[in-house]
This record gives sequence, structure tokens and C-alpha cells, in this order.
Amino acid sequence: MAFLCKKLINDPNDVVIEFIEGLVETYPELQYLDGFPEVKVVLRADVSSATYDKVAVISGGGSGHEPAHAGFVGEGMLTAAICGDVFASPPVDSILAGIRAVTGPMGCLLIVKNYTGDRLNFGLAAEQAKSEGYRVEMVIVGDDCALPPPRGLAGRRGLAGTILVHKVAGAAASCGLSLGEVAAEAQHASEMVGTMGVALSVCTLPGRVTSDRLGPGKMELGLGIHGEPGAAVADLQSVDVVVSHVLNQILSQETNYVPIRRGSRVVLMINGLGATPLMELMIAAGKAVPKLQLEHGLAVDRVYTGSFLTSLDMAGFSITVMKADEAILDRLDAPTKAPNWPVGADGNRPPAKIPVPLPPSRTTKNDETSNRPTQLNPQGNILEVAIEAAATAVINLRDNLNEWDSKVGDGDCGSTMFRGASAILEDIKSYPLNDPAETVNEIGSSIRRVMGGTSGIIYNIFCKAAYAQLKADSHSVITPLHWAGAFEAAIAAVSKYSGASAGYRTLLDALIPALSVLKEKLTAGDDPVEAFVFSAEAAVAGAESTKHMLALAGRSSYVSADILASVPDPGAMAAASWYRAAALAVKDKHRAL
Amino acid sequence: MAFLCKKLINDPNDVVIEFIEGLVETYPELQYLDGFPEVKVVLRADVSSATYDKVAVISGGGSGHEPAHAGFVGEGMLTAAICGDVFASPPVDSILAGIRAVTGPMGCLLIVKNYTGDRLNFGLAAEQAKSEGYRVEMVIVGDDCALPPPRGLAGRRGLAGTILVHKVAGAAASCGLSLGEVAAEAQHASEMVGTMGVALSVCTLPGRVTSDRLGPGKMELGLGIHGEPGAAVADLQSVDVVVSHVLNQILSQETNYVPIRRGSRVVLMINGLGATPLMELMIAAGKAVPKLQLEHGLAVDRVYTGSFLTSLDMAGFSITVMKADEAILDRLDAPTKAPNWPVGADGNRPPAKIPVPLPPSRTTKNDETSNRPTQLNPQGNILEVAIEAAATAVINLRDNLNEWDSKVGDGDCGSTMFRGASAILEDIKSYPLNDPAETVNEIGSSIRRVMGGTSGIIYNIFCKAAYAQLKADSHSVITPLHWAGAFEAAIAAVSKYSGASAGYRTLLDALIPALSVLKEKLTAGDDPVEAFVFSAEAAVAGAESTKHMLALAGRSSYVSADILASVPDPGAMAAASWYRAAALAVKDKHRAL
Repeated sequence: MAFLCKKLINDPNDVVIEFIEGLVETYPELQYLDGFPEVKVVLRADVSSATYDKVAVISGGGSGHEPAHAGFVGEGMLTAAICGDVFASPPVDSILAGIRAVTGPMGCLLIVKNYTGDRLNFGLAAEQAKSEGYRVEMVIVGDDCALPPPRGLAGRRGLAGTILVHKVAGAAASCGLSLGEVAAEAQHASEMVGTMGVALSVCTLPGRVTSDRLGPGKMELGLGIHGEPGAAVADLQSVDVVVSHVLNQILSQETNYVPIRRGSRVVLMINGLGATPLMELMIAAGKAVPKLQLEHGLAVDRVYTGSFLTSLDMAGFSITVMKADEAILDRLDAPTKAPNWPVGADGNRPPAKIPVPLPPSRTTKNDETSNRPTQLNPQGNILEVAIEAAATAVINLRDNLNEWDSKVGDGDCGSTMFRGASAILEDIKSYPLNDPAETVNEIGSSIRRVMGGTSGIIYNIFCKAAYAQLKADSHSVITPLHWAGAFEAAIAAVSKYSGASAGYRTLLDALIPALSVLKEKLTAGDDPVEAFVFSAEAAVAGAESTKHMLALAGRSSYVSADILASVPDPGAMAAASWYRAAALAVKDKHRAL
Repeated sequence: MAFLCKKLINDPNDVVIEFIEGLVETYPELQYLDGFPEVKVVLRADVSSATYDKVAVISGGGSGHEPAHAGFVGEGMLTAAICGDVFASPPVDSILAGIRAVTGPMGCLLIVKNYTGDRLNFGLAAEQAKSEGYRVEMVIVGDDCALPPPRGLAGRRGLAGTILVHKVAGAAASCGLSLGEVAAEAQHASEMVGTMGVALSVCTLPGRVTSDRLGPGKMELGLGIHGEPGAAVADLQSVDVVVSHVLNQILSQETNYVPIRRGSRVVLMINGLGATPLMELMIAAGKAVPKLQLEHGLAVDRVYTGSFLTSLDMAGFSITVMKADEAILDRLDAPTKAPNWPVGADGNRPPAKIPVPLPPSRTTKNDETSNRPTQLNPQGNILEVAIEAAATAVINLRDNLNEWDSKVGDGDCGSTMFRGASAILEDIKSYPLNDPAETVNEIGSSIRRVMGGTSGIIYNIFCKAAYAQLKADSHSVITPLHWAGAFEAAIAAVSKYSGASAGYRTLLDALIPALSVLKEKLTAGDDPVEAFVFSAEAAVAGAESTKHMLALAGRSSYVSADILASVPDPGAMAAASWYRAAALAVKDKHRAL
């Protein structure tokens, strides 16, 4: 299964340089030293060693951990980041160049992750800088909690907890504290923090072959951040189990890596390792908080979830727990312009859940408008026969609709429409028929109750829009022009939300011509009932004409033109059918009156 | 190659709920509606429909696109985000609940990506809300530029450009504009933006099997964000080629999707699709900017690089280009508390590169201190013989050192030390021997020139620290106590940066006992030359004693105790050897004087 890794890069040797070029294009407050490619230093554009009156905070190390460290350069956090090649400590000359570029009379603090190469290179640079007259201090961070207490030095690697140390030091420096004070705060922070990681995949260096060290269904626990093997390989578990295990390791009283005891206050960091979707990181955060609170008896003051210190394209995350107090929280909450420090994670939390608001209560509604009236008025009578006729027409057309739909769609148009029409006939007993607007609204509710899929939503939108228009236009009497206005609003809503319009081979090809004729006749002063019937003929003609249309929406858009020409659009035919039935029923009723 | 996807989750059905729980733990300014699991709505904790006096901006859609959309909820951007299940449109009731929760008398704008399900569900919710008396507008975003101009509606999908529309609308609403004005700005923004994506892998839904649709060495161009196949599959190219192709598609005058012409001002967004390391996104950004400037003749006003609208764990990115003017830049630059809107990408850019600062010039140095003096003073004479004797001793010990090292290390200790000592003997001709501090510094430079690896850095640190101490302590005459102080500083620096101390089986096990004896004798007022010789015996004894030590640093820490007991630490033996040779040479020289 090994193959050359897929990466969107150019020459693997240029990835760090090109990363920095993109970084400074993205963030105008960052600059880099023009000593490429040997010197790879990102620094604050507003800081010059000649004028800087605060302690400079400098970090760095091998690249491949983006956004660390360059993404944390900014007022209130790092002053400069020294970038080595991928997973390689930066050379002494780069570090020196960075120190010289940003260090003023207040001196600089170097924050270094506990790897031999970084310690020695930063160390030599520090000594060289001191011999040039700079004031330099160094704090080494080793927050790894994966391995048993070390025999030697190799044990406690510097991991994502380093980012929290950067923030504490940067905020302290930003307050104008002295080098000794900034170094002391950073040192203290480094002693309060523990980290452990879990990976689902091995990272691949640019231009290299992907390792198949981890098979399917396996995960590595207690990994490093340079692709080195983890402390243990285990079967993949649910994130719940993984989080519990990692927290137990970090907080182990046996290793005693962090001075956290029941009742302590802590901050939590969930750090993605490069290829982990934010969804998974947030899930881990959501699980870790209650575990820390309930199983470990800790107060969780802050949660930082994101990708902060990664390992190229490794899938997985690390969890960091840091003992917190007011002083540390002040440093973590202090504002910073560093682009990748999380925004909005400061401050205390209100209740996370709030109740779902109820719909506005229908206080203005009386029994008259929410139930069938004991006595129908003439308008109510006509509405009832129109609805019954329309629904019955759709019911009778079921098999035809299904047959047409089986050629151009999924064959259930008739059955779906049948369900809606049947529900209307069932519910009509309780419609407030003397109130046409509310009745239209109730028709929408009947449809929503039983008709799934797109057609259910479309008819529901149709009814809602008509209802809103009727409510807006009229108070007691609904005129034919009000009905036409409601019909127009309903069509406009369906067109807007579905994106379809005339000629798209949909129900609109029946309804739009009907609306057009209806408005024309009513405006001309024709008899409203006749206008309704005339417009129904236009609906039928429009529906039939869909045979000659290409489908531009819905499933029919995938069907060939030959087949489409053999049948009309079933949705348009259904619409024409109920519209025409309603019109004829209204005409009959009027004649009978 | 198909296998069940590896994800750090619990029940695949709960991923959206658990994501939201983690999100609100992380960001105290976000809340969610307590209608879980049916209603999944994230909203600003400080907004209540009862009191909100601005236009609410609401978006949402299927989940799996994190941080979109919930990560963009915050003052100045979205007021609420409605979360569907993974890649599924949210139900009408969720959308309605969100509208009711945050919409005040100013109304709400729904920003919807152009997918049929989203359009219809948000559309129905909008109509329902209107019928309840809310003022609602909707803007649909379809920024996809991958496909040829569409026959119907399906063509232009809503992609990452939607995030820019959110920002414009959110900033406009934040200024107190009316619903009509906010909707008009959002509509305008949606017409200015084009997006196209490229993927290296197919995304996998939680609990599903990973598809092997894309083989090794292939990429998909013009993909959707729901795992649907891209418009084309191609051989993987360098990111340079990929970026050029994508920009040409977006800016094509043939499709004319965005009204961008030579001379236009634009903003650029490089959006990771879920599993793409930031390094690769930044590389793409760094390549896209000069292409837009030079090949397309555009001014690039802002660059947003990160993961904004993803597709679960898909590897790849999309590029978005938006036509910009001052009004749009004002909206994009406006402050927001939305956690995932990029920080520090606003404002205009100073020159990105600055020159590497030069080391402080050695103006105080004259020929006397940077070159061998024409005449050595007595101190210079002694220093010369000491250096020569020390270097010669190391040279003579080469084979022994290599032999010991072959048992406990990589066998090159003697050869490495030999190179350093030879360089010193070569360079001594130009050492400023009458200035002991500068001479020590030059020894460090000789070592740095030829000795690679850890031992080179360690001896370099040793010399630099001694030099800095000598410079700090003394001006013209260097007393034996000054030498002892420099020796102590050098040992402290090596210990600090390497992490080793007494008993770690390193060179310090020779030097620390020597320092101890030297200080004791000098403090007691003993003859300095005798004290030096005495301390040299302590160095040799210390080095010999390393046979009985476990290794706690370096490669020897992986070697068994049996083998370790058979040889002394070669680094300690080398140190004892040069120290003793120097002491004896100084004694001889003094006797001769």
C-alpha cells in the first residue's frame, strides 16, 4: 500500500520557503528576513531591534508543524519565529539573524521545544548573541506525558503545550515586564503543562513515500510530532475511550508530570495534527470537558480547539492540559494579533444551551378560525366544494401520474400527490372554511403532514406564501383579485426557492399560464368565475405543452429528449388537474346558488 | 484498498450533535438551542429575538463543512447557523427555530448555498416565518466556476465564496442597515465571487467505507463539497500548475462567471477541504497572488488562507476570487467575533521582505585583537603552548576515542575531535593570542568551521560562553580566577543547552570535577599552576569513572550496561585529555620561564 505521497506542492525542497511566502501574503503584519533560502525567519512587521522597547519572544524549530511557529507571530505573542527545514532544527545563523532583527535593549527570550538539536542550535545562537552584547534567556518546554518518567533527557518532548507557553510569555512581554520576569512566567507555565497525542495515520514528508506502518483499524498513542513511532499501537476505539485514556495518562499521579490535583483549575487544548477535520477536534473537546470536570474533579476555565502544532498531514490530535490560575488566565486571555491564536475562546461561559423558542401564540385566533365553523357562509361553502373537487381530481389521476413519472422520474408522483390529497379530504372536516386565509394555511399543514420529498415542500411553500399574501391583503372579505394576488405570491415563492421558472418543465408550466389568463380577465372586468374557468384551460394547455420542453430541474433533467417528448410533466399535469377541477366546481356551485 | 474509514468519533449518527457540544465548550460566546437532537442551531449567546435591534444574518446547511457554518457565528458575521446532518439539508423546523430565536423587528436575512434541498427547506421556513409576522429575505449563493454554464439550476453550486458573502452581510447588518440594504449587499457580493476546487482524495462519511475512486497520482478538479465526483480527473501536477489552471477557469471570459477584468481589484481565498495541512494552503496562496497580479493583471487586496468550508476529511483546496472595491473591503475588514473568520488578514501590506540584519560591527577591534600579534606577551606565549598541547593530545588520542566510541556510539568521536584539533593547530597562526578572550572565541570559530554534529555545537557553546564571561569579567589582565569563572560559565552553558549534568556519562563528568578542584585550590590561595595540574588529575579520574555510569544522554543511552562498563565515555576521555595536556604544558612553560 505504500505509494508516493500526494501533496499540493512544488519542489519538496522548497516547501518551507513557499509556505513563508504565502504566509506573508496572507498576513500583512508579518514579514520575513530576506536571507532566503538559508535564513528562514518570520517576524512582526512593526518591530525593529533599533526601537523595540519590550522583551522579544522568539521561538521556532523544524517546519512541518504549521501554523506553529510562524502563525503565532504577532503583537502579544511571538516577536519572531525561526523556521528550520521540515522536521530539522534551524541552523544557528538563522536563529542569530532572528535575534538580531528583533531584540532591543530589553533582551529576548528563546522558547525552545525539548529536542537535542533545537536546544543546541538555539543554545549556541544564544551564547553567540550574548557575546555580541544581547541579553538572552532561554526556556525549554518538555510537555510530553506519553512515556514513563525518563531515564535521561530524551523522554519529555516539546509538544503542543509549547503554544500555551508562547502565549503566556508573549502577553507578559507585551505588558513591559523585564526579561527575567518574562522568562520566569514562561518557565512556570512550562512546568504546569502536559500533553499526549493519538494518531490514526503516519505523516509523510514532502516527496517521500507514505508509510504503511499503521494498518487499517489501528491507532498510535503517545506519538511524537516528527513521525517517530508512538509509545503504543492499539485498535481504534471510539473517541470517548481515546480521550479518557489520554487524560488519565496526562493526569497520572504516578508519573506526576503536571501538578494538577482534584479541585485544580485547568485549561484544555485539543490540537489537530494536520489532517484532522475540525468536526473531530470539536467532538473530542466536547467529550474531554465533562471528563475533566466529573471524572477528574477539575474546573475547566478555557478550551482551545483547532490545529496549532501539527505533524504535516498526520490524522489525529493531541490533548494538552495546563494548570491555570488567574495570572495564567490573564495572560491567555490578553489580546494578541497572532493570526493563529484562537479567537473567542476567552472569558467565562454562560449556559451553553437555551430553549427552543416557541412559535408566536395564536392569541388572536378564536374557535371560529381554528376549527370548522358550525355554519358555513357562502364563501366557505364555495371554498369547500373547490377543495374537495381539487383533491378528488388528484386522487383520480394517481395512476396516470405514476405512469408518466415512471418514464421521466422515480414513478411516485401520483402516489405522493394522492397522499396529500387524501390528507386534505380527511382534514377538511376541521378547516376553518369561513376564513379562507387560515384554510389555505391548514391545507399546507395537511400536505406537510403526509407528503415527503421535494413536492411536499413545494406545495407547502405554495400554501404558506398564499396564506401570507391573503393575510397581508385583506381582513374580512376576500375578493377574486385577492385570490389572484395570493396565487401570484405563491407562484413567485415556488419559483424563487426552487429556482424554476416558465419552461423548466415543472408545475409552474401549468400555473404560470393560468395566473396570466386569470389576471388578464379580472383586470378586463370579466366575470370572476368565468375568468377562473378560462384560466384553468390555460393551465391544462400549459401542462400538455411540457411534452415539448427539456427538463431543467429535478430528476427529469437527466432523462433523454426522446423520452421526455412522449409524456407531459406529471407535476404540471397534477397542478392543471386540481386547478381545473376547482374552477369547474366553483362554476357549478355558483350556477346552483 | 477500500476499508472502513478511520475517524476519531463515537456513534456516526451523533457527530453533528457532539461537534456542537465541543464548539460551545470552546467558544463561550456561542450557544445552541436545547432542542437536540432534532433542532441543531448555533447562535450568538448575546442575541435574543426579544431585544435584537439589528438584522439577523442566518445561514446553514448540511454539516461536514466545519468550521462552516457554526464557526462563523459571532458579532459582525452570522447571528445563527442551522446545522443539518452530514451533507443533508437541515429540516424546516430547525430553520424556523433559528429564525424565531434571533430575529427581532429588523428582520432576518437567510444566506443559502445553491442546493435544491437547502433552497426549499430554507424557503419554506422563510415563508412560514413570514406568515408568523417576521420580516425575512433570502440570498442564494452559487459561486462554482467548475462546470460550463448550466442548462438548468444544478450548475453553480454554493462553495467557499459563501463565507465572504456571510462576512459582507454580517458587517452590513452590524452597522444597523435595514433588511433590504443588507440583502442587497449580500446579493451584490454573491455576484462578485467565483470558486473552484481541486481534491487529492475523496471524503468519507462517518461510519462509511473509504472510496478508492481516486487512485494514486490522480487529482479531481472542479469538485463539489459533498463527495460528488469532480468535473475532471487528471494526473497530479505541481501546485503551480494546479493554481494556474484553477485561476484560469474562475476568471474565464468565456463562462464570464465573475465580472473581473484586467485592472480589477480582488480578494483571494485559499480554502482547505478538511485534511489539507496549512503548509500546503499557504504554498498555494503564495503562488496564486503573483499569478493574479502578473498573469491576470489584478490587484490583490486581501488574502484569506485557511480551512473555512470543508468536506469532512477531503485533501485538497478550493480557490475563491472575489471582485473587491472599497465598500466590500470595508465589510471584509470590519471587526467580528466569529471564531473562524481569519485574524490579521485585513489592511494593506508593507514590504514582505526585510534584509537580514548584520552582526554588530567590531569597531572596537583593532588588528591587535583580530590577528596574531607580531610579538606575543608572556600570557600570549603561555596560551599558545597550552592550546598546542591540548590540540596535539586530542590528535594523538584519535584511534582510542574511535575505538571506545565504536562500542557505545557511532564510532566517530576520535575522527570528529581530530578535525577540530587539526583546525585549531592550523588557525592558531592567526589567533590574537595576546587577547585571551578573543582567542577563545576564535577557537570556537575554528571548531564550528570543521566539526559537525552535536559535539561541534557543544564545544562551540563552550567557547562562546567562556568568551562572553571573559569579556564581561575583565578588561586587560586575565587572572586565574577569571579563567576559572570562564570555565564555570562554559560548563553551565553546555549543561543548560544539552540538558546533561554530572553523572550523565558525558564530557561534563571530566570537566565538572576539574572545575570543582580548580575553584577549591584557587580559593584556598594555592599556586594557580599547581591548582591547574591538580584539577587535571580530577578530570582524568572523572573521565575514567564514566565506566561505572549508565548513559543518560546521546546515543549511548541505548547501549546495555555490560558494554558501557567496559569502556569510558569517549567524550569525557577527550575532554580530560586536552585539559590535562594544557595544564602540563602551562606548568612546563612556567618552569622554563
